[in-house]
Amino acid sequence: MSLENLLSRIKPLNQGAMDAARQRQAILTKPAGSLGRLEELSIQIAGITGQPLPQITHKMVTVMAGDHGVVAEGVSAYPAEVTPQMVFNFLAGGAAVNVLARQAGARVVIVDMGVAVPLEPHPSLIDKKVAPGTNNIAQGPAMSREQAIQAILAGASVVEAEAAQGLDLLATGDMGIGNTTPSAAIAAVLTGESPVVIVGRGTGVDDAGLQRKVTAVQKAITVNQPDAADGLDVLMKVGGYEIAGLAGAILAAAANGCPIVVDGFISTAAAMIAAQICPTVRQYLIAGHCSEELGHRLMLNWLGLKPLLDLNLRLGEGTGAVLAMSLVEAACRTLVEMATFADAGVSEKMD
Amino acid sequence: MSLENLLSRIKPLNQGAMDAARQRQAILTKPAGSLGRLEELSIQIAGITGQPLPQITHKMVTVMAGDHGVVAEGVSAYPAEVTPQMVFNFLAGGAAVNVLARQAGARVVIVDMGVAVPLEPHPSLIDKKVAPGTNNIAQGPAMSREQAIQAILAGASVVEAEAAQGLDLLATGDMGIGNTTPSAAIAAVLTGESPVVIVGRGTGVDDAGLQRKVTAVQKAITVNQPDAADGLDVLMKVGGYEIAGLAGAILAAAANGCPIVVDGFISTAAAMIAAQICPTVRQYLIAGHCSEELGHRLMLNWLGLKPLLDLNLRLGEGTGAVLAMSLVEAACRTLVEMATFADAGVSEKMD
Repeated sequence: MSLENLLSRIKPLNQGAMDAARQRQAILTKPAGSLGRLEELSIQIAGITGQPLPQITHKMVTVMAGDHGVVAEGVSAYPAEVTPQMVFNFLAGGAAVNVLARQAGARVVIVDMGVAVPLEPHPSLIDKKVAPGTNNIAQGPAMSREQAIQAILAGASVVEAEAAQGLDLLATGDMGIGNTTPSAAIAAVLTGESPVVIVGRGTGVDDAGLQRKVTAVQKAITVNQPDAADGLDVLMKVGGYEIAGLAGAILAAAANGCPIVVDGFISTAAAMIAAQICPTVRQYLIAGHCSEELGHRLMLNWLGLKPLLDLNLRLGEGTGAVLAMSLVEAACRTLVEMATFADAGVSEKMD
Repeated sequence: MSLENLLSRIKPLNQGAMDAARQRQAILTKPAGSLGRLEELSIQIAGITGQPLPQITHKMVTVMAGDHGVVAEGVSAYPAEVTPQMVFNFLAGGAAVNVLARQAGARVVIVDMGVAVPLEPHPSLIDKKVAPGTNNIAQGPAMSREQAIQAILAGASVVEAEAAQGLDLLATGDMGIGNTTPSAAIAAVLTGESPVVIVGRGTGVDDAGLQRKVTAVQKAITVNQPDAADGLDVLMKVGGYEIAGLAGAILAAAANGCPIVVDGFISTAAAMIAAQICPTVRQYLIAGHCSEELGHRLMLNWLGLKPLLDLNLRLGEGTGAVLAMSLVEAACRTLVEMATFADAGVSEKMD
């Protein structure tokens, strides 16, 4: 699979399916429009899947993990060893995303995109490691352009394999100590906003740590001079391997007609990279939630997305996206399963 | 069961269980506070249930139905015959709330509190009819004080019966053509706000219909002079039977240590009546969503509640509350099922 080939498979939404879904919404037993955003979502998913009556059966959240050379700048409240420790927690089923995915009926697929230390093989761990962590973006590019493409295609391959078995809904998740810093750098470059309105406290740095993060992002941009018009250039210079993998996963889901629920700050940075590489992909995106992390709303606005949830979450891992999966499923189920006025013998609105 | 007896069983939340839940949240494998409102919810539910590790197994949405004499004022876009038609749609499983409840794993319990026409008996329909619809509140009181108490106790008895079999989470729902008008009247009286900032378009009246609704609410208040300090007086003068039944269901859930997810405009009016009768009941309430209906946010503010969802819903039936049930369940499951830092061998935050 080449990147060009992957991108060529991403098409605009199916208008016929969207029209059919819109017409059905108007004859279901409820005042027209009264299911609000659920109705809009159902129409979007009809367009994404090409199915006028879309059904969500196979759900997956992929949690992609990577480490970040920029932790040397003191940008995280947690030590880098937490990245592999949390990977094992995911594999053991003890993390928040595992609990939420069990409730949602979603498979959890853990991918090593670039964890700094070697990880013991595990039947549920997919090894796509491109390199043992990125270089420090405050001093130079995170990775080479070839590594960025390799990581995107590796992430895409995870979704391609799943799509071959039937995949109706993808949620994106991340793990990587330090990864709010490259995500903020991506957001600052693509939105054109100052790092001070983008950089947040991540897992909980204090005021001094926050200042170090802002400085690291400013340095990363100054040192690397990423070209905002070129998504790959931004990714290789100030990104990360899990971010690249998630961008690839998003592109592959779109190529397979599968809706994508985007999680918080890191996943949204990945979605921005994907959208800069292929603008059509925006039509396939659903924003799961608005994170507490400072710049997230600006990032969602740049993508043209309105979040489904706003619950002050700031955990990542895909938690907000998995929580929102039940709303996406509800949107489809109401469209498909509700009775029509005619079927139920219910009188329509008076003129 | 007397109303006094019911109210005497509603106690403040269990502080010991809340403290235990709060302490556990701090040692789970996530940055402290990063699950945002899910953490707050889990602590509230621990306090409501008295369980430091609360589990949500038995879920129910009760949809209470009633008719309204005020429809004679031309306040609804739908004819009153839709109330019984929708009751049959609920019984047949074809309405939005049925679809969402199937997904959430919640039982749907339909109650005739005061539908204007006689309803055929049905094994899934609970007959608690107090009267065949209210009187026109624009001309006099909706019901007598005795009928208001009877309706509250009838609604309470539905929940008491369910609680005896184990009930972990209650969602409230309503059906009644015209019922946004008495709900708006209740809201205007209790918040002290003008009807013009409370009355919305309900199922979709046009501008002339909206003006008729505002006028009807103003008349109802002028004619009846409800005493805002007396919840029963407000209910009997400008309320409705399904609103009374829902107020009773809410009081009974609180009396049984069961959290209540409140739906939109009508359910919130019922919750306001319950809270005016027994202020402690507010601690048991969870606002499922913020409705599109105009005054809903003011009503939630009066109750001190922040909605979980904001999806432009305006359907009622309990739809927004049932959608939010999965978030409540997620809050409990993360508290109960997540690994601790010690269990998972994950390093804690650096100082």
